Amino acid sequence: MATVADRVFNFSAGPAVLPLPVLERARDEFLSLPGVGMSVLEISHRSKAFDEILERTLADLGSLLGLADDHELVLLQGGASLQFAMVPMNLLAGQSAAANYIVTGTWGQGGLKEAKQIGPTHIAWDGEQAGYDRLPGAGDVSLSADPAYVHITSNETIQGVQWQQLPDVGTAPLVCDCSSDFLSRPIDLARYGLLYACAQKNAGIAGVTAVAIRKDLLERAPKSLPSMLDYRTFVTKGSRPNTPPVFAIYMLGLVCDWLLREVGGLERVAAQNAAKAALLYDALDASEGFYRGHAAVDCRSMMNVTFRLPSAELEQAFLAEASSQGLSDLKGHRSVGGIRASVYNAMPEAGVLALRDFMNDFKNARG
Amino acid sequence: MATVADRVFNFSAGPAVLPLPVLERARDEFLSLPGVGMSVLEISHRSKAFDEILERTLADLGSLLGLADDHELVLLQGGASLQFAMVPMNLLAGQSAAANYIVTGTWGQGGLKEAKQIGPTHIAWDGEQAGYDRLPGAGDVSLSADPAYVHITSNETIQGVQWQQLPDVGTAPLVCDCSSDFLSRPIDLARYGLLYACAQKNAGIAGVTAVAIRKDLLERAPKSLPSMLDYRTFVTKGSRPNTPPVFAIYMLGLVCDWLLREVGGLERVAAQNAAKAALLYDALDASEGFYRGHAAVDCRSMMNVTFRLPSAELEQAFLAEASSQGLSDLKGHRSVGGIRASVYNAMPEAGVLALRDFMNDFKNARG
Repeated sequence: MATVADRVFNFSAGPAVLPLPVLERARDEFLSLPGVGMSVLEISHRSKAFDEILERTLADLGSLLGLADDHELVLLQGGASLQFAMVPMNLLAGQSAAANYIVTGTWGQGGLKEAKQIGPTHIAWDGEQAGYDRLPGAGDVSLSADPAYVHITSNETIQGVQWQQLPDVGTAPLVCDCSSDFLSRPIDLARYGLLYACAQKNAGIAGVTAVAIRKDLLERAPKSLPSMLDYRTFVTKGSRPNTPPVFAIYMLGLVCDWLLREVGGLERVAAQNAAKAALLYDALDASEGFYRGHAAVDCRSMMNVTFRLPSAELEQAFLAEASSQGLSDLKGHRSVGGIRASVYNAMPEAGVLALRDFMNDFKNARG
Repeated sequence: MATVADRVFNFSAGPAVLPLPVLERARDEFLSLPGVGMSVLEISHRSKAFDEILERTLADLGSLLGLADDHELVLLQGGASLQFAMVPMNLLAGQSAAANYIVTGTWGQGGLKEAKQIGPTHIAWDGEQAGYDRLPGAGDVSLSADPAYVHITSNETIQGVQWQQLPDVGTAPLVCDCSSDFLSRPIDLARYGLLYACAQKNAGIAGVTAVAIRKDLLERAPKSLPSMLDYRTFVTKGSRPNTPPVFAIYMLGLVCDWLLREVGGLERVAAQNAAKAALLYDALDASEGFYRGHAAVDCRSMMNVTFRLPSAELEQAFLAEASSQGLSDLKGHRSVGGIRASVYNAMPEAGVLALRDFMNDFKNARG
């Protein structure tokens, strides 16, 4: 059987490293859930065992997000990419006002592209000309009149650009793709009309997507929407209109439990994340230009640390040597190249220290 | 750690029992895939490790289905319920001809309901008045002129009614929801325009859905479909337009491997399934009316054996006593009541024999 000693440090942007205590617990009860007599993979989604898993998962996730009476929280399939379409299908179809998109990277572009198929859109800001290395400056965002909603991407996984404070969007509903910094820091849910996040970065495994939506927005959707694409179906049926992704929900529940009861909540994990990211950004800044960070300093991501080396050859050598030392999945996204170290909640500090030391050693040898 | 001895016989209709060798293998490599150094839950969907898993899974699944040049095979999320909408979104929207539905139970009704939102439909046969206990007789199906497609449900999981031979639909594309008898017997894929199946009955766990579609039908979809709802996206991107449900695909792959290389293929598993189901139907037929099967004899499901006892009180007692003997999840669907024993591929003969013996004992004590 595989053991902990076999494991490398996994800097993948997602699916990504999971907390070891979560993996060990899932492994230990893999053949038979305690008191149930079957694997969590085999339990009915209408069973008492799953009732408890789903209820506890939604309660813990709601607790982490500060869920209150104004919002509903649901779990769906299809990833954030399906949300790119479901958001405008539910909030834009039939509206005369435009959905506004503030585009800070690849995923913002993806959301905009789907919305354009469905209703009127307006680009309130787009960082493409600057290579998506920054957020809009003060006064740069130009909203249309009375937007149907304003969409942002809280953390651009590919470019490593993260919002530190939410933009002022007036009374328009703020819609946020939080996929890659979900549960990495506290949020003020009251400020969001809708937020969505796939789980496979900080919150679990691929196959489940969380959506929090303000209740008054639920009634915008056309009555003719297919039921599996209508948020109301998931609200009414308690995230269980059909067979949900049982195992992915179970893993989300274990991660929420770990965050709440082992880590100690989102304030604590945010401090850990900032400290981990600082180790790497400090190494960049001290490298005298050998490592060049992609994102402007004021919007550097605490999740995805993106940088270049002086040449493509050096980047190849960096990746190969890092991999041989058990530092895996550091290659930047194929669309932008370079290096990307994803340091989500579950990346242990030991992994970041090992990478920091490797970066220093590599620079000293090759710089 | 949980052991095999903790396990009960699980007759759930889905999610359902999995092959023990599959569970044990997944458990053994849970913390770290051999040679990879991370859990399959943590690997990037663009990694070499997942490239191999996806390629092998599609190849083995294609082999089991007899995939040839005429069809494409893709994996999606959302379950069969999302397919209820995706099928008409891709094959009916913009057509003038009606989609024809042959409705043999609850799931056929579900598919029809979604199609009605999207385009013209025609009910070619509906077994509702007879309580969904039968298939259409010779000459009972009344197709409209030149149907956009004809939809059937190969096995109605709730009622336990299964097609033994495909209906003659002329030149219309046959669309089939195979969710609950997928991979339980050989099929002639050439006869299908499109077939779809969620995995959590015979093929793995909840969270992944297989679709085989004839290539010429791919071009019917309107160009304006959201990309994640357009089959072409999944064909073009090799089932990986965004992060797919990695673990659910891995489990599907392990189940296909087990079917091909341990069981010996679909002919073999079909023979096993027929023998297992016969044990239970023989017990029904020998019970002198104590157990009354729901489905007409000629369309009895090999997957879901549905029956009633003389009273609701006896059914409650049956379920409670069965459960106390490690025979779990025998309760019929909440919409129809009664007893349902789901005996999918992975249900061992020992489980069926134990249930058969329990049925005989219970009848002798209470009949």
